[in-house]
Amino acid sequence: KKAFLGSQIRRLHTKEMNEEQLSSLKVDQKRLMEDLHYTCQWGTGEKWGEAPTETGMARLALSDTDKQARDWFVETAKELGCNVTVDAMGNTFAVRPGLNNDKPPTFAGSHLDTQPTGGRYDGILGIHAGIEMLKVLNDNWVETQFPVGVVNWTNEEGARFPMSMSASGVWAGSIPLEVAHNLREVHPGTATMASELSRISYLGNTPCSYTAMPMAAHFELHIEQGPLLEITNKKIGVVKGVQAYKWLTVKVRGRDTHTGTTDLKSRADALLTASKLILHSHKLATANGALASTGILNLKPGSTNTVPGEVTFSLDIRASKDETVAKMIDLVERDFPKIAAGEDIGALNEGCTPGLPLTVSITHDFDSPATYFHQRCIEAVNEAAHATLGPDGKSLVMEMTSGAGHDSVYASKRCPTSMIFVPCRDGVSHNPAEFTKEEDCALGAQVLLQSVLRFDRQRE
Amino acid sequence: KKAFLGSQIRRLHTKEMNEEQLSSLKVDQKRLMEDLHYTCQWGTGEKWGEAPTETGMARLALSDTDKQARDWFVETAKELGCNVTVDAMGNTFAVRPGLNNDKPPTFAGSHLDTQPTGGRYDGILGIHAGIEMLKVLNDNWVETQFPVGVVNWTNEEGARFPMSMSASGVWAGSIPLEVAHNLREVHPGTATMASELSRISYLGNTPCSYTAMPMAAHFELHIEQGPLLEITNKKIGVVKGVQAYKWLTVKVRGRDTHTGTTDLKSRADALLTASKLILHSHKLATANGALASTGILNLKPGSTNTVPGEVTFSLDIRASKDETVAKMIDLVERDFPKIAAGEDIGALNEGCTPGLPLTVSITHDFDSPATYFHQRCIEAVNEAAHATLGPDGKSLVMEMTSGAGHDSVYASKRCPTSMIFVPCRDGVSHNPAEFTKEEDCALGAQVLLQSVLRFDRQRE
Ligand SMILES: NC(=O)NCCC(=O)O
Ligand SMILES: NC(=O)NCCC(=O)O
Repeated sequence: KKAFLGSQIRRLHTKEMNEEQLSSLKVDQKRLMEDLHYTCQWGTGEKWGEAPTETGMARLALSDTDKQARDWFVETAKELGCNVTVDAMGNTFAVRPGLNNDKPPTFAGSHLDTQPTGGRYDGILGIHAGIEMLKVLNDNWVETQFPVGVVNWTNEEGARFPMSMSASGVWAGSIPLEVAHNLREVHPGTATMASELSRISYLGNTPCSYTAMPMAAHFELHIEQGPLLEITNKKIGVVKGVQAYKWLTVKVRGRDTHTGTTDLKSRADALLTASKLILHSHKLATANGALASTGILNLKPGSTNTVPGEVTFSLDIRASKDETVAKMIDLVERDFPKIAAGEDIGALNEGCTPGLPLTVSITHDFDSPATYFHQRCIEAVNEAAHATLGPDGKSLVMEMTSGAGHDSVYASKRCPTSMIFVPCRDGVSHNPAEFTKEEDCALGAQVLLQSVLRFDRQRE
Repeated sequence: KKAFLGSQIRRLHTKEMNEEQLSSLKVDQKRLMEDLHYTCQWGTGEKWGEAPTETGMARLALSDTDKQARDWFVETAKELGCNVTVDAMGNTFAVRPGLNNDKPPTFAGSHLDTQPTGGRYDGILGIHAGIEMLKVLNDNWVETQFPVGVVNWTNEEGARFPMSMSASGVWAGSIPLEVAHNLREVHPGTATMASELSRISYLGNTPCSYTAMPMAAHFELHIEQGPLLEITNKKIGVVKGVQAYKWLTVKVRGRDTHTGTTDLKSRADALLTASKLILHSHKLATANGALASTGILNLKPGSTNTVPGEVTFSLDIRASKDETVAKMIDLVERDFPKIAAGEDIGALNEGCTPGLPLTVSITHDFDSPATYFHQRCIEAVNEAAHATLGPDGKSLVMEMTSGAGHDSVYASKRCPTSMIFVPCRDGVSHNPAEFTKEEDCALGAQVLLQSVLRFDRQRE
């Protein structure tokens, strides 16, 4: 398979291909799906259907199963003739040389880690579409103008180490390496990202930085994770940007007391207060056209007959505009301490016995401002989508904004970037039953391939 | 020290003692407190003050530290001349023979297990007061009419295995042995009560039953765990009964989804719903003069950017009357499923975006109806309190009902029972800073000693 690199026979150069030749390069749907399901043997999650592929995934970042999937990625890319570089955050860059290798590669990128109750497509599809791209180029003896590559970013989910897109964030210079290295597991444990990178042998020597590993562009195929494409009967989303989001940790401090001997007015019940705060955050989100979500909640001491004295919970706030997120944070920081102290905001206390005052402290853990992708990449995706779907397929393409964060957010800070979305069933993601049809996976992979090639041949 | 049993010299018989002789038998405050703090080396918890004894306790039932405290109890009781029996629930009965050993002993009982963030007095004081009683009897060559004993009941707290008073419940025939043996740890783990009893060598051969180990009466000294004695400047509470309580587990089922791509109306957010249910339970408690408390809450999957699809929480409901608890349960079972389904009960949904319907299932884990103690034992405690405090101390004694459950609840189903309460600082319990003054501990122990002796000498 490596033969193409040395061979001079019938080699096609992207710059010299006509539109017909270019569009005739096609991903292999069967191979793509077989590869994808093959790697889902590492970190298989909850079963949701009868078929062996009808299970979710539980492949937390830097776990043993993540290492197995990474090893497969490295070996496969090497077999396909790529040079593989691992950086100090475990980001793994597989580069297929081009005609001219003095300039940075054009990348297809995504991630192999999943949520604890994740699916087989979020992130995984994007990596497999990148590998499929390399296979199509090799099979067809295509030589690109400049190198092209596939990158697997570390801990995109932020599910195990509580900053999403943390390793692309370090690459972009937005998150300090030490901060990311010292991130601790979200569920009680002693591991940090650095200790786990080292444990699974993915703490690379190359600095994690856009200067050490520059990119000409970054394209990412991903499932939409929301319902819009499905509802509107579209096949391809051309992603123009990503909404803003912030992650906070809220700690409520009250007092442990006996549930049977402490009357309601003598309590400082941290869980009752947390319940009010979570409900209030939902009301604020409703009033401001934002999203507010709590995915993690821990309490102390955790005994049926002890009123909890301490509750800690995560708060994920999102909106299309930075100003809306900022306003939500202001309202949360204004109202939460007052509610904890006993003030009746939004009639939360109606019908309640007033208790003792509690305190709240709020820390800011992660911030991803609204992102706007690059016009040139958006156009490359648009062209690729229309070339793929043909003249009758115009109505199947839609420009859209992503509700979820992606490594493309940080990539876009340092190189032209855009994304391709494909529909997923019922818009459901971060769920074992997450599902995208095989033909839609292949369609997305085809648009990815075409986007990368179209971008490459327009480069100077 | 065992000598008194065989010796015939100057032995005092309870039946023959006059009031003066009886009242002159006195506990040793210093020895009592030294013993208590000595055993608190096993399972020492959070520090709250400067002195070495100013820490809480974390001695969960059947843990390694519980075993150490139990071993001390067994050895100490044997040294004091007792016969020790361990039953199939690990309940440990230390019996000091009397003049006539054909009838069951009069017991002082309590427990050595604690909450995860418990104090040094809840349960522990009652056991040490029992041991101190044995020492006073030995020191003074007292021979009781019938045997007297001290019993350490297993898992009174219900903090580790989620049924309070579970082992006295089995003894009373109220909880089947298999149910108690198969109780699983509340925090994810695989241990059951049976496996832990066996592991720490406290799975005794004697059946756990009031027929195998009958009691003539059960007296229990305990800290009040509430504020009433302190607020009213009393020293001794004569406990007439215990309020009713029930423990439920509530499971809310929604759907795991992405926090960034799922709009509020497409969510089935199990934690938002649980927050409403917890708030509602507090409102129901307020409206019905009851208590409602949630001490444990677990959610799945536990990731910042996944809306939780499942939440499980405990609900502890209490009231002085059985009817009130029953009404609360009815209301909870009526309202919870409706609230989860989206109905607006008690204006909880005001200002909220309606989401998808969720479901709720409720299981009943534990039920302790209102308990009324035995008139004869209540009188023995009253007499003992007045004998201890003297004619001027009348105003320091108060009859009261317990807010907390105690092993005396189940003991009272099979033998005459009453309890003695002493004040604790700020009424705080199930908290590391739980505190009772040394002189109050000693006063309580003195009333316990006098209660047991007075009961013994009135027996026929
Ligand atoms: N795509 C994806 O689910 N990323 C996780 C980051 C986020 O929370 O949006
Ligand atoms: N005394 C005490 O705290 N017992 C635990 C049982 C209860 O929950 O009331």
